[in-house]
Amino acid sequence: MKKLFTKSSKKIGAAPGTLVHIGKRKSEKVKISYIDYDENKLEEKKVKTIEEVFPFKGLPSITWVNVDGLHDIKLIEKIGTYFQFHPLVMEDVCNTGQRPKMEDFDDYLFIVLKMLTYDDKKDEVNAEQVSFLVASNYIISFQEKEGDIFDPVRERLRNSKGRIRKMGADYLAYALIDIIVDHYFTIIEKLGEHIENLEEEVIKNSTPLTLQKINHLKKEMLFIRKSIWPLRELISGLERSETPIIQSETFVFLKDVYDHTIQVIDTIESFRDIASGMVDSYLSSVSNRMNEIMKVLTIFAAIFIPLTFVAGIYGMNFDFMPELHWKWGYGMIWGIFLTLGIGMLFYFKKRKWL
Amino acid sequence: MKKLFTKSSKKIGAAPGTLVHIGKRKSEKVKISYIDYDENKLEEKKVKTIEEVFPFKGLPSITWVNVDGLHDIKLIEKIGTYFQFHPLVMEDVCNTGQRPKMEDFDDYLFIVLKMLTYDDKKDEVNAEQVSFLVASNYIISFQEKEGDIFDPVRERLRNSKGRIRKMGADYLAYALIDIIVDHYFTIIEKLGEHIENLEEEVIKNSTPLTLQKINHLKKEMLFIRKSIWPLRELISGLERSETPIIQSETFVFLKDVYDHTIQVIDTIESFRDIASGMVDSYLSSVSNRMNEIMKVLTIFAAIFIPLTFVAGIYGMNFDFMPELHWKWGYGMIWGIFLTLGIGMLFYFKKRKWL
Amino acid sequence: MKKLFTKSSKKIGAAPGTLVHIGKRKSEKVKISYIDYDENKLEEKKVKTIEEVFPFKGLPSITWVNVDGLHDIKLIEKIGTYFQFHPLVMEDVCNTGQRPKMEDFDDYLFIVLKMLTYDDKKDEVNAEQVSFLVASNYIISFQEKEGDIFDPVRERLRNSKGRIRKMGADYLAYALIDIIVDHYFTIIEKLGEHIENLEEEVIKNSTPLTLQKINHLKKEMLFIRKSIWPLRELISGLERSETPIIQSETFVFLKDVYDHTIQVIDTIESFRDIASGMVDSYLSSVSNRMNEIMKVLTIFAAIFIPLTFVAGIYGMNFDFMPELHWKWGYGMIWGIFLTLGIGMLFYFKKRKWL
Amino acid sequence: MKKLFTKSSKKIGAAPGTLVHIGKRKSEKVKISYIDYDENKLEEKKVKTIEEVFPFKGLPSITWVNVDGLHDIKLIEKIGTYFQFHPLVMEDVCNTGQRPKMEDFDDYLFIVLKMLTYDDKKDEVNAEQVSFLVASNYIISFQEKEGDIFDPVRERLRNSKGRIRKMGADYLAYALIDIIVDHYFTIIEKLGEHIENLEEEVIKNSTPLTLQKINHLKKEMLFIRKSIWPLRELISGLERSETPIIQSETFVFLKDVYDHTIQVIDTIESFRDIASGMVDSYLSSVSNRMNEIMKVLTIFAAIFIPLTFVAGIYGMNFDFMPELHWKWGYGMIWGIFLTLGIGMLFYFKKRKWL
Amino acid sequence: MKKLFTKSSKKIGAAPGTLVHIGKRKSEKVKISYIDYDENKLEEKKVKTIEEVFPFKGLPSITWVNVDGLHDIKLIEKIGTYFQFHPLVMEDVCNTGQRPKMEDFDDYLFIVLKMLTYDDKKDEVNAEQVSFLVASNYIISFQEKEGDIFDPVRERLRNSKGRIRKMGADYLAYALIDIIVDHYFTIIEKLGEHIENLEEEVIKNSTPLTLQKINHLKKEMLFIRKSIWPLRELISGLERSETPIIQSETFVFLKDVYDHTIQVIDTIESFRDIASGMVDSYLSSVSNRMNEIMKVLTIFAAIFIPLTFVAGIYGMNFDFMPELHWKWGYGMIWGIFLTLGIGMLFYFKKRKWL
Repeated sequence: MKKLFTKSSKKIGAAPGTLVHIGKRKSEKVKISYIDYDENKLEEKKVKTIEEVFPFKGLPSITWVNVDGLHDIKLIEKIGTYFQFHPLVMEDVCNTGQRPKMEDFDDYLFIVLKMLTYDDKKDEVNAEQVSFLVASNYIISFQEKEGDIFDPVRERLRNSKGRIRKMGADYLAYALIDIIVDHYFTIIEKLGEHIENLEEEVIKNSTPLTLQKINHLKKEMLFIRKSIWPLRELISGLERSETPIIQSETFVFLKDVYDHTIQVIDTIESFRDIASGMVDSYLSSVSNRMNEIMKVLTIFAAIFIPLTFVAGIYGMNFDFMPELHWKWGYGMIWGIFLTLGIGMLFYFKKRKWL
Repeated sequence: MKKLFTKSSKKIGAAPGTLVHIGKRKSEKVKISYIDYDENKLEEKKVKTIEEVFPFKGLPSITWVNVDGLHDIKLIEKIGTYFQFHPLVMEDVCNTGQRPKMEDFDDYLFIVLKMLTYDDKKDEVNAEQVSFLVASNYIISFQEKEGDIFDPVRERLRNSKGRIRKMGADYLAYALIDIIVDHYFTIIEKLGEHIENLEEEVIKNSTPLTLQKINHLKKEMLFIRKSIWPLRELISGLERSETPIIQSETFVFLKDVYDHTIQVIDTIESFRDIASGMVDSYLSSVSNRMNEIMKVLTIFAAIFIPLTFVAGIYGMNFDFMPELHWKWGYGMIWGIFLTLGIGMLFYFKKRKWL
Repeated sequence: MKKLFTKSSKKIGAAPGTLVHIGKRKSEKVKISYIDYDENKLEEKKVKTIEEVFPFKGLPSITWVNVDGLHDIKLIEKIGTYFQFHPLVMEDVCNTGQRPKMEDFDDYLFIVLKMLTYDDKKDEVNAEQVSFLVASNYIISFQEKEGDIFDPVRERLRNSKGRIRKMGADYLAYALIDIIVDHYFTIIEKLGEHIENLEEEVIKNSTPLTLQKINHLKKEMLFIRKSIWPLRELISGLERSETPIIQSETFVFLKDVYDHTIQVIDTIESFRDIASGMVDSYLSSVSNRMNEIMKVLTIFAAIFIPLTFVAGIYGMNFDFMPELHWKWGYGMIWGIFLTLGIGMLFYFKKRKWL
Repeated sequence: MKKLFTKSSKKIGAAPGTLVHIGKRKSEKVKISYIDYDENKLEEKKVKTIEEVFPFKGLPSITWVNVDGLHDIKLIEKIGTYFQFHPLVMEDVCNTGQRPKMEDFDDYLFIVLKMLTYDDKKDEVNAEQVSFLVASNYIISFQEKEGDIFDPVRERLRNSKGRIRKMGADYLAYALIDIIVDHYFTIIEKLGEHIENLEEEVIKNSTPLTLQKINHLKKEMLFIRKSIWPLRELISGLERSETPIIQSETFVFLKDVYDHTIQVIDTIESFRDIASGMVDSYLSSVSNRMNEIMKVLTIFAAIFIPLTFVAGIYGMNFDFMPELHWKWGYGMIWGIFLTLGIGMLFYFKKRKWL
Repeated sequence: MKKLFTKSSKKIGAAPGTLVHIGKRKSEKVKISYIDYDENKLEEKKVKTIEEVFPFKGLPSITWVNVDGLHDIKLIEKIGTYFQFHPLVMEDVCNTGQRPKMEDFDDYLFIVLKMLTYDDKKDEVNAEQVSFLVASNYIISFQEKEGDIFDPVRERLRNSKGRIRKMGADYLAYALIDIIVDHYFTIIEKLGEHIENLEEEVIKNSTPLTLQKINHLKKEMLFIRKSIWPLRELISGLERSETPIIQSETFVFLKDVYDHTIQVIDTIESFRDIASGMVDSYLSSVSNRMNEIMKVLTIFAAIFIPLTFVAGIYGMNFDFMPELHWKWGYGMIWGIFLTLGIGMLFYFKKRKWL
């Protein structure tokens, strides 16, 4: 349940713009690095103090500052103050319970996304909050902990591959969002495998645990949906916004990310439909099992109760029971037993209970 | 049920604008207090008569008048008359069955909200109606009973913390709405805990009472949803309204509250989905229990009914039954009993019924 | 079923505007009365012929003509002709199967509403159609039968209470609509009580009849919803329409009725959710009862079938059965009976079946 | 299933505008008739060749040409060519699998509707496609087979009843659409009766066939909904379209048809809700019946299994069983039998199983 | 599951516009052919290298280039470079996991569709991606493998049948889209047959496999829906777009395809409703079967358990049991057996269990 909302009760009553790190502390130390580039040169460095990146604000080259770890409130405050970001924005950067959203502050865009990863051990989807502050010549990105998700973009920057070095900060922002959305597909794939396994389990070998697994899966899908759904709005908001930060050539790329988002959402919706079909299957498998049990009981009862009765008849102590004294009486009674028993078996065979 | 609508039948036929207190009387005496402040000074006082706050209407400083208790109709009438609020507004202030809403009367805004609290004893969510009348230089707030929910805002005003003393009445209104919305998160948290407990109960130890608890929870969620849902519209209404009372700097703060509201609503929707998954689990647990019962019955019947039949055979009184006179006949019959009995046990073992 | 649509097949092929009374004839005689008033004077009278009210059309004072009973087609035709209403309007007045709606004919507004009453005997909601023709200086209202629902408005007119005598026909129309909407709350209350009773019945004492009652309730709610839902559109249509008949001061009152309508609809929606939760409860109570029955059967069978087998053993007639000749054999067998029987009881006790 | 879509596979790859009759051939011969009228005169005739009606195209009087039967492709082609209708329109006229729709081609309107009839023998709703081509001074209507549905309109034309002779082709179109919509009410009525009967059957006497009937009904409702739902759009399209063919006086009549359509759709939606309530009832009746069966079994088993055990005790052959030799032993055992049996009966009576 | 999303994980991190063939390689060799035509002449040819078609770009005649097979990345890159298509477009052409969509790049339109085919062996619907690049005087179409679906259009071009040779590339695009949509109807037909068969199977002869088949069908419908649903938007996007590529005469044809799409979607929705009705039927058939089993058990138990008890009575060994010594005792007991047995049969007959 914890995943579906982030505890933020400790914040009640705090002044808006008060920076408090909300969420688990996922990294030991906050790490800062930057890449500064234009079409011709690229400079990349890990820095110890945030002040080292401040000078880039005024340069025409594109600078991407990446901050891993959100618990150093002072550092985040410094960034906010120096770059003159709105206090609420810096508050949202620290609070990992944000809904994905985009806000346009004329000079810069604030973008919050959820990066999803799959924890194979717990069979759980985890979300990490990623925020971007995108201005015309720099991007500041915040992650909860160090990760390698953005490495392919760094690689493309270094190799000057594709158009990335020739275009602005908006294109870099697109590239970063794009890679996050691309990762959703791997989550979807994992879920797809789980659903397939569960479908087989429901049909072949369902136990009460199966339903728990289905419900667990449904909750994971709720969680993913909650993390991805607002992206539709976010990206179409970017497309519609008339901010000068997004250049017109970038629109077609945003449309592409938008299409991917829709594809992911569509698939999640299909999965939800399939999951509710699985619940039906599960419930009917329980009923079918009951039918099996009842059949076994009925077959035993229907064969042996009449036979016991017949045996009971000849266990009676009446003085005058001629059959008891017949020579073949006992043999005859075995004949009756066998006839009745086999007759019942045939009857149940015919009814397809056997 | 009483919670889902407020009895207002006693009002039928009354002229609109007739003030009637509708709802439970939650406080003994009506209490009035005010805080008057500007950037430099702050004055705070509890007053006995409402007339004491009237002079502030004309002053440029911001005045926040808080009224706890709605049953003193005369007092509320006086406020309405002096400040020239629309009679319907004053009627709505008294009637605690309002839906959250915002109305723009050019000179002032009328805002109705529901404050939610969690009654741990009854495991119930309670709602208290809070109304705000927001003009450019004063706010009048009405609560059903005295409470400490707004204390953090008072504290921030006193300490001159943050921007609150520098901005207008609209920012104060935002701060008050914000604190109410923040409280929703604690309700959500409580619900989350309840759902987790219920999920465990459904899986491990469900009784007919469990379904009652799930249905109770679903009703509480309906109630919360009803109280919070209209806030979306309310706040986006504030954002869209072109009233001069809301200054442009305040918009970004309203957007923030809006985001929180959406987050709460999203979570409630997820909870509803989870709750209906729990109903499935509960129903299947009932069926599974039936399967268990049937298995016990079938195992007993399938083992002992055939054995009884065999015993019945040798209880028959036929003259000629050679087995009866064999020396090892009785031993042999015990052999048959054991073979049949153990055979059945193995059969059920193999079928995984044991 | 009859309630959910009104038979109108007899009308097929009739020219539009042909007046036919459709619906049950609920009153013996058509009764006409009028109230003519302005700020200073009020005249009230029951009239025998409709012609008596015609002269008021031209006067500046506000006139409210009320017609109880719709089966006197001639009378309604006369009204239509004299006041020059559109033939389709007069047709709709007579046809009680209308959906609530508002139509703007420049000179006058045509408003159709459903008045709901609760028939305690049949536990049913009944609807009566009420139509208003609202012009700038008169209102003509049509009801299916005489009723006292509008009496409070008449009283307010007579007492010159509130603003009603000072405002125009549009405000009178609002007052009449308001009183109809207010009545919906009493219906909601009745439904709420029914739901509470049913919830208790489902939990404590459900019978197959309980589901019938739930389904009956659901149908009543469908009926109410059908009668009230279009009001949303109707009233917001009034608010949006640019008709000169509705004066700007009246808008805020219409908004108030609109809020009430939304509240009623919200509550009905909540009730529907609760009702479907009750169906779940009912179905699970049936399954639980089955479990109880199966438990009784299983306990009896599991205790006595093995015992019967044991008794059967010693009813066999083998020559050599040493136990039969032991002195304490019979006592011992009773020991076995009691041990087995009590053992089973403990087993079921432990399984919580007892 | 055939009803829910019309086979059109034979058309794949044909050029658009290729006329092919799709659907069952419902009439032997194509019949053509016309009515030509203005305010003063009316001429009515059945014609053999379509060419006879061509001259009316240029006359100022209103002409209504009715074609019964769609399989004479040549004839329909001729109409298309002479009146210069778009080839796709003529294709749609022939293809009876159209969805109701309205298309505005400036000079003329193309309207497709479904006429519904109820086949009492098969308890099925059948749909016949009716198309109208409406120009300013003529209407050409196409039906799949001869029928009398439009007779009341013909009658009104002949009798010069109402306004029909005074108004244009648009009003005639309205009158024809109106009569088709009016017929929907008779279908709704039939369905209503069916639902009532089924509701009674579910409660009193449900068999597996009952569910089949409910599902059949649900499919019929799907079919009706599919035929009627697009009408909403169609008629509001007519209202909104700025075509000169529809004159402003006709709008209020179209609004009236629109209201009727909404009423029919509303009722169908209510019926669907009721039908799903019936499925619940049916499923619970199956469970209740199971409970009844289990009760019978349990009562028999619980009474006679213990008794049989008691009888078994005294059927044992122990040497020393004092009760066997008591004088009243046998009488006493009967006492035990009766006490146990009657005791059980009382027990089940108390549990309300009997 | 694989069908519901296309694995694209291998692409993560690649620069946008990197061409990678995603999907199964369905054809051995890429085949290219073109048809170049105007009103008077037509030239048709299979070419080996894509360069052969480049010269047509500048000619006024309409050219349709068809490429079968998407795995020759170089070839697709060449097309993209020569015709100056956006790199993302070429990427989407290669990636068969696209959602149907239309994108307007001023000079050309990019259209992606899904062609559906029915695999009778696996009872599965397969989708093949078809992309169109439509400029004012040429169309380039891409298919995953060679197919004959477009043959009727080729035939019409060759025969100069209909208007196709007289109109522009936009009309050719329409004709190609139209034929794809037409094919959906054959899929719908297949599904319809399957549903009918399943409905019969559910009623007459349901097994646990039946539910699997229903769920399989539901998944196929999800898949079809996912493939077709976006077409609504696509085609209405074409209608709305103000691109000069689509000429006004073509709009009415696009409207026609739009209608067909809606029809297909409507039918799929109806099928989904029917499928969920089938799940109800299936579940109730399982319950009904259980009732049948229980009836058999109960009948056997209720007849033979009491009889066995009676036989047990006279198997008791009391010294004094007068009946045992009566001459007709044994005959009498058979009378009792028969009376009881036949009595029970009548009882069950009356209860309609037999």
